[in-house]
Amino acid sequence: MGSERSRTIDTYLGIDWGGTYIKSGLIDARGRILKQETFSSRQLKKKDVFIDKVISLIKAYRTCTIKAIGIGAPGIVDTKKGFIYYLPNIPGWINYPLKNVLEKKSNLPVFVDNDANVFALAEARLGTAKGARRAIFLTLGTGLGGAVIWNGKILEGNVSASEIGHVPLALAGTRCSCGGRGCIETFVGAQHLVSRYQTLKKNTSSYEVKDIFRNALNGEKEALTVWQEFSQALGTFLGGLVNIFNPEVIVLGGGVAGAFRLFKPLVLAALKKQAMWPNLKGLSLVRAKLKNPGIIGAGLLAKEALN
Amino acid sequence: MGSERSRTIDTYLGIDWGGTYIKSGLIDARGRILKQETFSSRQLKKKDVFIDKVISLIKAYRTCTIKAIGIGAPGIVDTKKGFIYYLPNIPGWINYPLKNVLEKKSNLPVFVDNDANVFALAEARLGTAKGARRAIFLTLGTGLGGAVIWNGKILEGNVSASEIGHVPLALAGTRCSCGGRGCIETFVGAQHLVSRYQTLKKNTSSYEVKDIFRNALNGEKEALTVWQEFSQALGTFLGGLVNIFNPEVIVLGGGVAGAFRLFKPLVLAALKKQAMWPNLKGLSLVRAKLKNPGIIGAGLLAKEALN
Repeated sequence: MGSERSRTIDTYLGIDWGGTYIKSGLIDARGRILKQETFSSRQLKKKDVFIDKVISLIKAYRTCTIKAIGIGAPGIVDTKKGFIYYLPNIPGWINYPLKNVLEKKSNLPVFVDNDANVFALAEARLGTAKGARRAIFLTLGTGLGGAVIWNGKILEGNVSASEIGHVPLALAGTRCSCGGRGCIETFVGAQHLVSRYQTLKKNTSSYEVKDIFRNALNGEKEALTVWQEFSQALGTFLGGLVNIFNPEVIVLGGGVAGAFRLFKPLVLAALKKQAMWPNLKGLSLVRAKLKNPGIIGAGLLAKEALN
Repeated sequence: MGSERSRTIDTYLGIDWGGTYIKSGLIDARGRILKQETFSSRQLKKKDVFIDKVISLIKAYRTCTIKAIGIGAPGIVDTKKGFIYYLPNIPGWINYPLKNVLEKKSNLPVFVDNDANVFALAEARLGTAKGARRAIFLTLGTGLGGAVIWNGKILEGNVSASEIGHVPLALAGTRCSCGGRGCIETFVGAQHLVSRYQTLKKNTSSYEVKDIFRNALNGEKEALTVWQEFSQALGTFLGGLVNIFNPEVIVLGGGVAGAFRLFKPLVLAALKKQAMWPNLKGLSLVRAKLKNPGIIGAGLLAKEALN
């Protein structure tokens, strides 16, 4: 899929803005990536540097017909206005009219949403939730991104809501990265898993989630306990969401989902205990499958907003 | 509003099916109640007796132009098929095709939904959430009915979902009426409030929620503690839902909402601590205001499904 093709068809610039990397890609109307680049988020953390980089990308792709720009931002966004309220892990981006600024500089329509919502859009159109009318998405990492597709669309208000990672599962619980307490992130986030494992192992080695996964596969008691507790919390929590949304599919992505085949049966068992049974009919729990869902979702966000 | 008027206009039969009373009413297209009757739920608990009563109502109203029948049922329903999965407090109604049976006997279109969803519809069209695109509803009683209006419509799937009263706020919590554990109902339901008050008062008198309310207004320490704990749980829980739905309004109804003016500031304080601040803009917390929202909502359910 080279530049010959991209000259003659409509394309969309999708930007997947993560805490470590910013990935940009040119997609076609079917969500296929035609060109792709990766940058360090640190180098683009300043607003003017970020904007200049996007403009230079558009110039580099000037032989292609770019119809619009879509951005999945790691934080809370006014999706109607493309206005960034704040990005928890990137200081300085507070109350910033990204859409306005970038539209003026690029002369292209710009659409901004939360990164988890954009991930969900990609999986709902082209991934494991393809064709689903109602689906729940969680990206399991250090932070917990959440999204809901309802009636085929991202569930949101004026704000990029849909933040199911920040629903509490405990009263007066552990302080969460969002400012609240006891959110599901504090039960199943990577940081909690590692710290719980350290406690059980009675040492402070710098474990990673994949170590806990591997050790559990080898039958180690402490590692298995971590995944059992993880599954009990995640399954119980998802059971409540199933009572709200009656989803057809729940999609789990992110680094922690690397242990999916280990925890899937345990999560399902806890989920089935919590949810009302009519809501379980036809429900499936799957792992996200797309490569680069952030780029694809951001591009599709722009495409669908335009049409 | 007498029979003269109801002869010449289109009307809808709304049935508000509660655990204690069944209320039926004839409403006009604007949701005004033209005729109304109340029955004991116990006397109509058998399926054939219930169906016969509805048919006899239609005959009694035969001089009116009834276009359709709407029913708010106290349980889990397939809303597309009008099929009752089960009613927790009314044994015997399991896997029953209510819509099919009643349509054959009445020759009228029949629509069935959950009672809390129907309550929400009435409040969203004519009550305190009038005009809201996104609203959250809780009926605070012995059980906790929940509903969500999103983009102006009841949020549901194939099943009468929207069951926010059955989302857990604790892991391995108290057993809930729904079969799950630790649902918000087990923290703020009337039964919990009374039992907590008995524990604090160190006696087993048969208190009612209104006693705890009155005693709190008189400054009694134990009663105030009950409402403080109630508010902490309800506010924290609602904060999580606000992160999902970015609602414009939260509507509280049911008997326990009699203490609304006492607990409102405490609930709001806890909610604001939990929710992400951009979601709080323009949010209001109000008490339900309609008389007979169950009848009106059931009638509107039929009217809107028909149009």
